[in-house]
Amino acid sequence: MKLAGIIGYPITPFNANGEGVDLPKLEMVIDTLIASEVNAIAALGSAGEAAYLSEKEWQDVASHTVKHVQGRVPVVIGIAELTTEQAVKRAKYAHQIGADVIMLSPFSYYKLVEAEIYSHYQSVSDATPLPIMVYNNPATCGIDMSPQFMLKMIANIKNASMIKESTGDIQRMHKIYKLSGAMVPFFNGCNHMALEALNAGASGWCTAAPCLIADKPKQLFDAVQKGDQNKARELFYQQYNFLEFIVKAGLAAAIKSGFDLQGNKVGPPRKPLLPLAMLEQEQLKDMLATLGHI
Amino acid sequence: MKLAGIIGYPITPFNANGEGVDLPKLEMVIDTLIASEVNAIAALGSAGEAAYLSEKEWQDVASHTVKHVQGRVPVVIGIAELTTEQAVKRAKYAHQIGADVIMLSPFSYYKLVEAEIYSHYQSVSDATPLPIMVYNNPATCGIDMSPQFMLKMIANIKNASMIKESTGDIQRMHKIYKLSGAMVPFFNGCNHMALEALNAGASGWCTAAPCLIADKPKQLFDAVQKGDQNKARELFYQQYNFLEFIVKAGLAAAIKSGFDLQGNKVGPPRKPLLPLAMLEQEQLKDMLATLGHI
Amino acid sequence: MKLAGIIGYPITPFNANGEGVDLPKLEMVIDTLIASEVNAIAALGSAGEAAYLSEKEWQDVASHTVKHVQGRVPVVIGIAELTTEQAVKRAKYAHQIGADVIMLSPFSYYKLVEAEIYSHYQSVSDATPLPIMVYNNPATCGIDMSPQFMLKMIANIKNASMIKESTGDIQRMHKIYKLSGAMVPFFNGCNHMALEALNAGASGWCTAAPCLIADKPKQLFDAVQKGDQNKARELFYQQYNFLEFIVKAGLAAAIKSGFDLQGNKVGPPRKPLLPLAMLEQEQLKDMLATLGHI
Amino acid sequence: MKLAGIIGYPITPFNANGEGVDLPKLEMVIDTLIASEVNAIAALGSAGEAAYLSEKEWQDVASHTVKHVQGRVPVVIGIAELTTEQAVKRAKYAHQIGADVIMLSPFSYYKLVEAEIYSHYQSVSDATPLPIMVYNNPATCGIDMSPQFMLKMIANIKNASMIKESTGDIQRMHKIYKLSGAMVPFFNGCNHMALEALNAGASGWCTAAPCLIADKPKQLFDAVQKGDQNKARELFYQQYNFLEFIVKAGLAAAIKSGFDLQGNKVGPPRKPLLPLAMLEQEQLKDMLATLGHI
Repeated sequence: MKLAGIIGYPITPFNANGEGVDLPKLEMVIDTLIASEVNAIAALGSAGEAAYLSEKEWQDVASHTVKHVQGRVPVVIGIAELTTEQAVKRAKYAHQIGADVIMLSPFSYYKLVEAEIYSHYQSVSDATPLPIMVYNNPATCGIDMSPQFMLKMIANIKNASMIKESTGDIQRMHKIYKLSGAMVPFFNGCNHMALEALNAGASGWCTAAPCLIADKPKQLFDAVQKGDQNKARELFYQQYNFLEFIVKAGLAAAIKSGFDLQGNKVGPPRKPLLPLAMLEQEQLKDMLATLGHI
Repeated sequence: MKLAGIIGYPITPFNANGEGVDLPKLEMVIDTLIASEVNAIAALGSAGEAAYLSEKEWQDVASHTVKHVQGRVPVVIGIAELTTEQAVKRAKYAHQIGADVIMLSPFSYYKLVEAEIYSHYQSVSDATPLPIMVYNNPATCGIDMSPQFMLKMIANIKNASMIKESTGDIQRMHKIYKLSGAMVPFFNGCNHMALEALNAGASGWCTAAPCLIADKPKQLFDAVQKGDQNKARELFYQQYNFLEFIVKAGLAAAIKSGFDLQGNKVGPPRKPLLPLAMLEQEQLKDMLATLGHI
Repeated sequence: MKLAGIIGYPITPFNANGEGVDLPKLEMVIDTLIASEVNAIAALGSAGEAAYLSEKEWQDVASHTVKHVQGRVPVVIGIAELTTEQAVKRAKYAHQIGADVIMLSPFSYYKLVEAEIYSHYQSVSDATPLPIMVYNNPATCGIDMSPQFMLKMIANIKNASMIKESTGDIQRMHKIYKLSGAMVPFFNGCNHMALEALNAGASGWCTAAPCLIADKPKQLFDAVQKGDQNKARELFYQQYNFLEFIVKAGLAAAIKSGFDLQGNKVGPPRKPLLPLAMLEQEQLKDMLATLGHI
Repeated sequence: MKLAGIIGYPITPFNANGEGVDLPKLEMVIDTLIASEVNAIAALGSAGEAAYLSEKEWQDVASHTVKHVQGRVPVVIGIAELTTEQAVKRAKYAHQIGADVIMLSPFSYYKLVEAEIYSHYQSVSDATPLPIMVYNNPATCGIDMSPQFMLKMIANIKNASMIKESTGDIQRMHKIYKLSGAMVPFFNGCNHMALEALNAGASGWCTAAPCLIADKPKQLFDAVQKGDQNKARELFYQQYNFLEFIVKAGLAAAIKSGFDLQGNKVGPPRKPLLPLAMLEQEQLKDMLATLGHI
């Protein structure tokens, strides 16, 4: 199983009373992503509000995603837990339900030192045979892993085999590329740096954007693959304001608002997260209109 | 109920197999703090590894602390949850078991905007009559609240009535003091800035240090109260290396190692947290010996 | 010669056409400081716009300050030059005119490594017998020197014997105190942290505030010296808004506006520096009125 | 006059005694750049140690560069002065000697507010008819200008017409591109981000690299222009370690060492700048050997 291209991130729609996952709507979201030509589905990332789900809700999203995708594309399961025990438990569950890849991030209350992070990844790797995408996102997870350290884990921990980098610092990608001799696949997790990441050699782009703007991210990926730099630049700048907006406004709130604006009511994010403010909704509406998706 | 002075933070000892709370040892820790002349006990803070406990463990620590303290000093319960629903649930539990104060911090995956934080505090305030200490600790909780914003919540949210500031920026305390006309009590949460915080007008100092160095923090507090600046400075610099060390090494790991070094085996922190490395243990041993506590 | 207490910083008044130093007005400023009971005068610091003077103007300020002070208090000469050659030249000039101390800061275009900074200080020390105050102010000079590095220079470079710390990080002062065994004198350069610096053991406070608020800084220094903590806190908070304001608005512009508001016209700072905006002038006027100095 | 492509930065060789400019060697450097197919020469940038030159040396470099280039390519003169008066004086000099463009940066002791920066640029624009490249390099100049502010100056200040961005933050370039409707030319000043900058629409790349690695930067520029993305990526990663090295080691010291290693002795940088340490020289030698330039 080799990942590449656009990895699409579903949001998690809740039931009308705010509790439990609205599974039919989750199916709609997944089908929207697949219709947007994503090359994989990554459940339970930031966009999926994984951090805010109960144990049961988390399992429902994971298992139902695998079931509904039905092998049309690979399924990645995001895991970002405070304790190693809980991360291991979720990794085993991901394997048991037939997921294809684990995207594993440390998550901090205390800042962790490298020995602690290493041991966390080692424990998860020991627990299942699933390939592990090492995921660095200090803005949400509170811990920053250097390219050097991530490559060390990939060299030494059996199932750790690829990287998702979300700092938005293009130099991290240069380092991964150079230090690994271009041999370790890395994915971009910073939407509004997609052009640069792909040009710098990223294998793919992890994004919730296809929930709302169809195959435009895929078109950008394809343009870079074909070496059509002018088209890639044009496509990127076309999407740029939208890509920056969903990151800055918060992925879950922004994508959920976007679905609502497009007529697919998916409800608000979970508190303390609030829906987009009125002004932000107007901005998003304008961007979607400009892109022809409303 | 008016808090002032030293607020002591217990660590959470786990059973030998690493699962569940070792209640007799928790009692020993609580009694150590009370013998160290703390003016209150704050369960389930950073030192208590609250973020790493299961629901049942968290409740066990909370209820057993209240029960064992038996009114000897007030009991503060720390709450730092990702969802508002869970924070409300724990606040109600704290009230139900007879705790005196809630120390409430936002905890982030997504960065929250002020409207989201405000609503989170409002919901907890609506759920119980307990006074709320607004707790700012961006290093662990991922969200930084300005003095202005915290004072706004205290002015408008019924039960929010005091502040714990842990950024280590003395200017925050100046701002709280000046903007509130010295009327809002604030507590210091940065161990190695205790001298300055108390001199700047803090009502007290939140610290796990009395777990290991007896009433030395209380002596420092008393010296400042009496206006004995020279003694305060001497006491502060005496403890300084130790106070800085436990913060930088991580409170839970450092205090647990200290108990072990003093002959009170309390076991390691929960993974991914690791015990102090050998070299750090030696440093801690030296500091405790210098202070006469080993 | 042992420095302690309040080290006062004059501004540099220019002639009406903006060129050359208005020496009679400089005398007025110096006399104002001495009337404010400063324990030393430091010419050519930030407040003195040293960075914006021509060679001749710089020399005029230095020599005229020494001449006019006439031994009433020691004179410190600030030196922050881009090249070592120029720093040496100015240090020799300071010695030649009879100044007492050199306050030496690196000044960067390129960030300097420690070997470069060390060699810079060594060259200046070799050039004159004047004691050197090692001055750390990354916000203006672009280079941050750690307490450890500054103490290393003081241990090894003959004339380097004291420190001025202006980062506003109280931990730097704790480090200087502890690492030097309280043996290296250090001075506070962050106005709105004066209370804490003095409590932490600073020998003095470098400030332009006495230009405008008379002996209030000296009263604060004296209160700390006498161990009268309550009076010190009261005096500090009385001056706090003013102290923070002059730092944030820019010392040269703020102090010059203040002189104007008090009826001592000293003219604007040198371009690109602009005088305080109208709103800022109103704020300053209010603060001076509250303090009884207008 | 329209700038595009590679803008080459000469270093400034000093005479054997360290004083005055070695003009024959400066000619060698300029000729090396032109042989490296640069599209313009920018004298008196960071690499040229402009900040460390005397008035006479600065004028010697400026005038001799124009004279020796003899119109083969346009000549840009860098100006980064603390006072507006001095910046204006140098701008007039640049015009008088026949330079083509002024590259103007604010340079700070005090942090400047936007009104101060704006007025600085306005004064320089009023003083000569030369086009002004607005240059943002907070790491050396101490002031950070936002894309929005720079575009505002370009819209309103007559001669301000293009931007050099050196923060190394690719988002700044996205902003310049989007906010100006791709109408304001911008140049990349961060060597190890050249690939991304050019892909993002930069008109050119300001670099001292051609001093040492011939037309490799030009080849990269040409590959991007032709839309040959694969070749561009290959050329970029080939040069990457070298490009990052010269930035991190300090441009003046690194380029001067490189000339020495290639057999063109140009002497050390001016103190406090030190030549590369032995280990760094070895690293540079290895990189140059790998690139076939030693």
